[in-house]
Amino acid sequence: MIRFPDRAAFTSALNALPHPDALAIETAAARQAQLTKPPGSLGRLEDIALFMAGWQGTARPRLDRIRAAVFAGNHGVAAQGVSAFPPAVTAQMVANFQAGGAAINALARVCGADLHVVPLDLERPTGDISVEPAMSEAECFEALNAGATMVGGDIDLLFVGEMGIANTTPGSALCAQALGGDASLWVGRGTGVDDAGIGRKIRAVSRALALHGSACDTPFETLRRLGGREIAAMAGAILAARMEHVPVLLDGFICCAAIAPLAAAVPSFTDHCLAAHCSAEAGHALLLKRLGLKPLLHLDMRLGEGSGAAVATQVVRCALAAHREMATFAEAAVAGAL
Amino acid sequence: MIRFPDRAAFTSALNALPHPDALAIETAAARQAQLTKPPGSLGRLEDIALFMAGWQGTARPRLDRIRAAVFAGNHGVAAQGVSAFPPAVTAQMVANFQAGGAAINALARVCGADLHVVPLDLERPTGDISVEPAMSEAECFEALNAGATMVGGDIDLLFVGEMGIANTTPGSALCAQALGGDASLWVGRGTGVDDAGIGRKIRAVSRALALHGSACDTPFETLRRLGGREIAAMAGAILAARMEHVPVLLDGFICCAAIAPLAAAVPSFTDHCLAAHCSAEAGHALLLKRLGLKPLLHLDMRLGEGSGAAVATQVVRCALAAHREMATFAEAAVAGAL
Repeated sequence: MIRFPDRAAFTSALNALPHPDALAIETAAARQAQLTKPPGSLGRLEDIALFMAGWQGTARPRLDRIRAAVFAGNHGVAAQGVSAFPPAVTAQMVANFQAGGAAINALARVCGADLHVVPLDLERPTGDISVEPAMSEAECFEALNAGATMVGGDIDLLFVGEMGIANTTPGSALCAQALGGDASLWVGRGTGVDDAGIGRKIRAVSRALALHGSACDTPFETLRRLGGREIAAMAGAILAARMEHVPVLLDGFICCAAIAPLAAAVPSFTDHCLAAHCSAEAGHALLLKRLGLKPLLHLDMRLGEGSGAAVATQVVRCALAAHREMATFAEAAVAGAL
Repeated sequence: MIRFPDRAAFTSALNALPHPDALAIETAAARQAQLTKPPGSLGRLEDIALFMAGWQGTARPRLDRIRAAVFAGNHGVAAQGVSAFPPAVTAQMVANFQAGGAAINALARVCGADLHVVPLDLERPTGDISVEPAMSEAECFEALNAGATMVGGDIDLLFVGEMGIANTTPGSALCAQALGGDASLWVGRGTGVDDAGIGRKIRAVSRALALHGSACDTPFETLRRLGGREIAAMAGAILAARMEHVPVLLDGFICCAAIAPLAAAVPSFTDHCLAAHCSAEAGHALLLKRLGLKPLLHLDMRLGEGSGAAVATQVVRCALAAHREMATFAEAAVAGAL
């Protein structure tokens, strides 16, 4: 099992990222060229099959074991009036996840994902990032490892989701710190704040950047100061997945913001990730672009919970079904191009 | 069962299209407002659920019975050198469909569709549209009814696909005739013709438009002169679906071209249709725009066979799962917005 006991372990993991299996990709591509269809005619489904082949290390990748982990955390910065919902909703929604009544429950059932719900000290919100670091070093490692714990090498695909009232505010702060730009570039309506709420978010993010910016000298420190428990857990899970060669479907704005500090430090960090969708949250399209990711879906979703990733698993499933099950020109006695 | 015995029956069907159930939509929307998520946060999934509610006439639409029909036909215009593949491939691919080895077989299995493969007189290609009408009146009605036969009121969702070497050429002709614009606006590479092939396609379409244009005074006549058997079958199936209140997922360029004459005559014709995807075929994006349809997926697919629609059924499945299975705020004891 992957664990990050200290800063050195986290840094060395990030500096020794494994790569996909080039031979598996080559063999999968050779198979694709033989399948009964015009070359390239399945578009991105073909790219997905090769991506999965590379990370699973096999020319016929599978999707039997999808792990979904939804992390929940509370945020001190909620006190700044940055969310349309009260902080109590985080725990209420966790209960809803545990009872099976949320969107992610329905979607995880449809996509056949093994869903884990991981509340992280909900009764103890993180520090308000506009006045102090979100977490102590120990708290941040605890959160990173809560994420890493969800990952094992026996998983065909991982996706992570989150629930945390006010968490688009730390999400925006992470983007601005890691990728540059004013707070206003990265702040959006989240679950639906009004214009006054947007103003409060921008001010909170700006104060956080002014307070912590110069101290954010490593991805870990950026996550610790500007993130949150569920955010660090997502980052820990996605990094652990890379170390285990497990491909990842990235969900929306928060999920991508969680890895922005890692990807800013090591641009190839996202090589094991597919972007599930471009959400309706204002900063997500730019964030994906800056991460070099082209989203699979554009469905104007903005719920979080891993919901966009859950939908995208179905696209991956289609890609692998075609790749695994189609006949070759020779098997089907179909003529090739003139 | 819906049948089109003659021109009058076809025209009267087109002029008396049924509408969705407004009460079912209203009830479904009221339910959506109560589900445990910020309003609108599932984006287009919410729209899909309301669309399905309207056509199924129930506030909790289902997706247990997906009918897929793939029609195949051969085209006299293939003699003009408009395809990268020889015409014999149509029958070879039908055998591949029947043996379960094509992309649509794998995708239909994944999406749980009941797949029907319907070859239409493959040994008798249609007339070469650049020199004569594609079909006689009797042949066109036979094809339309081969499509209508695939539809019954017990279907939750229909999609149709096609196989027909050279059929992007009649597809382009139908678009140009129904929606205007030069042949070059609607002609693309199909399964992969080179630039010389594109030139031959444009010339064939231009000759067909010059020859038949003034005689294309009804949607039926346009389909008969410029279409093909599998194309008329798709149009017949999609029209029959409307009459039976069955929602339809439109596939790619050929599928949308098949209904272009109907939609040009009766713009509300596509009200029971969702556009599954925007294909990589050159004219499809414009065609969707002219039909007033916003595609669910952009995956650069261009295979036909109903493959894009099959992938999109999974998005519909996700939409309905969330809509049907989520708990309400009251059921889950979750607080609403501040």
